[in-house]
Amino acid sequence: MTQPVFHTGDTICAISTPPGSGAIAVIRLSGPEAVAICDKIYTPLQSGAHPKTKPMPATFKSHTAHLGTIVTAGNILDEVVVTVYRAPHSYTGEDVVEISCHGSNYIQQKLIELLVDSGCRQAQPGEFTLRAFLNGRYDLSQAEAVADLIAAGTQGSHDLALSQMRGGFSQNIKELRQKLIDFTSLLELELDFSEEDVQFADRKELMALLRTMLKELDRLISSFSLGNVIKTGIPVAIIGKPNVGKSTLLNAILNEERAIVSEIPGTTRDYIEDTITAGGLSFRFIDTAGLRHAGDELESMGVERTLQKIQEAEIILYVCDVSACTAENIGDIIREFRELHSDPSKRWILIANKIDKLVEIPPDFRELTDLETIFVSAKRKENISMILDSLTRTVKCDALYDTALVSNVRHYEALVRSRDALTSVEKGFRDGITTDLITIDIKQALYHLGEITGEITSDEILGNIFSHFCIGK
Amino acid sequence: MTQPVFHTGDTICAISTPPGSGAIAVIRLSGPEAVAICDKIYTPLQSGAHPKTKPMPATFKSHTAHLGTIVTAGNILDEVVVTVYRAPHSYTGEDVVEISCHGSNYIQQKLIELLVDSGCRQAQPGEFTLRAFLNGRYDLSQAEAVADLIAAGTQGSHDLALSQMRGGFSQNIKELRQKLIDFTSLLELELDFSEEDVQFADRKELMALLRTMLKELDRLISSFSLGNVIKTGIPVAIIGKPNVGKSTLLNAILNEERAIVSEIPGTTRDYIEDTITAGGLSFRFIDTAGLRHAGDELESMGVERTLQKIQEAEIILYVCDVSACTAENIGDIIREFRELHSDPSKRWILIANKIDKLVEIPPDFRELTDLETIFVSAKRKENISMILDSLTRTVKCDALYDTALVSNVRHYEALVRSRDALTSVEKGFRDGITTDLITIDIKQALYHLGEITGEITSDEILGNIFSHFCIGK
Repeated sequence: MTQPVFHTGDTICAISTPPGSGAIAVIRLSGPEAVAICDKIYTPLQSGAHPKTKPMPATFKSHTAHLGTIVTAGNILDEVVVTVYRAPHSYTGEDVVEISCHGSNYIQQKLIELLVDSGCRQAQPGEFTLRAFLNGRYDLSQAEAVADLIAAGTQGSHDLALSQMRGGFSQNIKELRQKLIDFTSLLELELDFSEEDVQFADRKELMALLRTMLKELDRLISSFSLGNVIKTGIPVAIIGKPNVGKSTLLNAILNEERAIVSEIPGTTRDYIEDTITAGGLSFRFIDTAGLRHAGDELESMGVERTLQKIQEAEIILYVCDVSACTAENIGDIIREFRELHSDPSKRWILIANKIDKLVEIPPDFRELTDLETIFVSAKRKENISMILDSLTRTVKCDALYDTALVSNVRHYEALVRSRDALTSVEKGFRDGITTDLITIDIKQALYHLGEITGEITSDEILGNIFSHFCIGK
Repeated sequence: MTQPVFHTGDTICAISTPPGSGAIAVIRLSGPEAVAICDKIYTPLQSGAHPKTKPMPATFKSHTAHLGTIVTAGNILDEVVVTVYRAPHSYTGEDVVEISCHGSNYIQQKLIELLVDSGCRQAQPGEFTLRAFLNGRYDLSQAEAVADLIAAGTQGSHDLALSQMRGGFSQNIKELRQKLIDFTSLLELELDFSEEDVQFADRKELMALLRTMLKELDRLISSFSLGNVIKTGIPVAIIGKPNVGKSTLLNAILNEERAIVSEIPGTTRDYIEDTITAGGLSFRFIDTAGLRHAGDELESMGVERTLQKIQEAEIILYVCDVSACTAENIGDIIREFRELHSDPSKRWILIANKIDKLVEIPPDFRELTDLETIFVSAKRKENISMILDSLTRTVKCDALYDTALVSNVRHYEALVRSRDALTSVEKGFRDGITTDLITIDIKQALYHLGEITGEITSDEILGNIFSHFCIGK
């Protein structure tokens, strides 16, 4: 691992609880002087007969909490609870002190000022977790998951981040990488003895390892599209001809009057986006302008954006007005649906709306069994839950613990590059390329795999990753 | 003390850190089942070889912190640190458990749901502090100060709240009240033996106690005006004739373009208010419409409001245009100043503005030594800091620790009622009123003194006090 130039010898401090005032706030210190600095500003509660004999932070055992006061310039700033975690048994692996104070903005601010005056440096975003990584408490993908965990707003994104933080796929990556390193050593040994034409590395075993790795990499790479939407929300486009009730459907799904609804075809011009959480997943619904030959330029711009939104969506709800269907035009609707429905990577659901206007569902529609069709009345909010059930059926959150999913773009890119390099290695062996050239590709694969877990990293990468953390973590 | 009907036998839980997401959040449990409930949802980290031997919350020693996981329905919700505080050595005096989790909204919400499912009740605002009061950890005035402490935004209001939380004047009140109780017992004994005409209570001592109490009550009552403004901010009115530069002065003090400034007399119609903190105190500056015989009804309304703002202010900055002063009209200015300056409870400062237009200060002005006068140029921001220095000199924050100040309206009212009752007692003794009538007044005084510290209280009073707390405290 390249040695980063981050300052690590000093002691950092930050407010670790959410910003604002509350009952309590926690200020965290980490570094070699954490306990000594706390010692300077701490005074035991003077309730006992012999205050002098009361213990000070320097003598606190690890993982113990102590009620005391913080004193500055002879005045008491607050009554606090100080908890000491001694290295290496702490979040960062360094000495850590947590000061739990009353949660006024004033106290939090003054306490930070006092700590800085006493020798602390204010922590950068993510600097505690950076230190945990540098001290080997987490690998890089685990450290990254800490920020994802704090940002997670649904069960899906939460479980994904937690699984990654607790090891996830990175342990697996590390093991495969280690095996590849072992083989590389043998291959390099062969190069040292190249005049003697020996083979230390078993080619069969190596090919088997390559196949195992490529299979695992393929699985992880293909998990990204799911992992990424679980993390960021699954985009669902609502499309259809004008006046089939798309905006009414959006309002029914969101259970609020989000979009303006009128009888006038083309009421929605801008696309409208809103999010709901169902089944532990976040769905971003996008109501679009009706698909038709546009009457004016303004509307034409709306239609163009609709087509773009279809591209971005994972799931498409194609809405039609079932009450306007006749034996003749049902064929047209289905044809149009199939025409649009060309991209097999997207899931299409046919929403047959306005069943409130029907006595019974036309049998022609019932026969279209190969299409996933849901009959609803957006106006009366009938069968709306069937849509949500169908959407959540796509992703089983409970399964997330069993299968490691990749949700991080950086990991995805590194995995793709590793796979490309390993594919070259495999091809090289098959084509009889010389060992020295093959090891170049292997090293490339090792490099990209190492990027994921942080065996290979740079200040720039670390700086970029941890700058997205919140302060105090 | 009347027994309140608050539920105290159950176990409560709440998020104690500020709302929102952050690096960490703390969820607090208090009550007889706090440890047992935590035991249900806690699993030790499975890193060791013998996870079964790892300790559970039920066996945690008081004041120790333990890394573990929270598990719900077989899935891990989060890795947390659990700290146990065993009764009576906790904030509430009951068993308390603090769960420090990752600070996502999702985790905080799910953890609260899990705790409620496991037998906790969600705490009402201030319910932890209410329990601390009911269990004798705080008296009522100390408990009230906890909310003040969290709300305090300046050094002054912070020191005031902290002093009150740490005992402040309430210990003194309690001692005086106890002495009065002792005397009352003796007086009541006299009533039991009334046929025998004995005096158990030394009348001289009683009168001395009454005088001591009245003196202390007077001091506390008169401290309220100061205590209250330290807590809520000191109102400072800026007044003067039109076009003397009042709004320019406000902008200079605030160091921003808060008020609209023009050459047209009467530009400011509404009063403008803004706050700055200086010397640990909060000052609320109020820029008013110019004082003159109004040209129209709109302006006349502005002038009326100005007079009202003078009433509300503690300090009045009377601004005049020193460059427009002649030997003749200086007398008028001073006369008007003295005329307005009739209320001795307010502090008046003469601000001689527009010194930028002068070569030197007129000697006539210099001779007005009995008025506190500050020469400034609001336009050029000259000598503005002298105004702030003068304002902060009014209140020495450092002195707050030495003198107990009353800042709470409820305490103020109880003190006034106590004083009224004790004044009647004193008068009664002097007038030779019978003991049985005098004891009625004494009991009234005891009642009101007891209200301050909470020896006398009611569900209604407690409900009202703690409903103003934040959740989790």
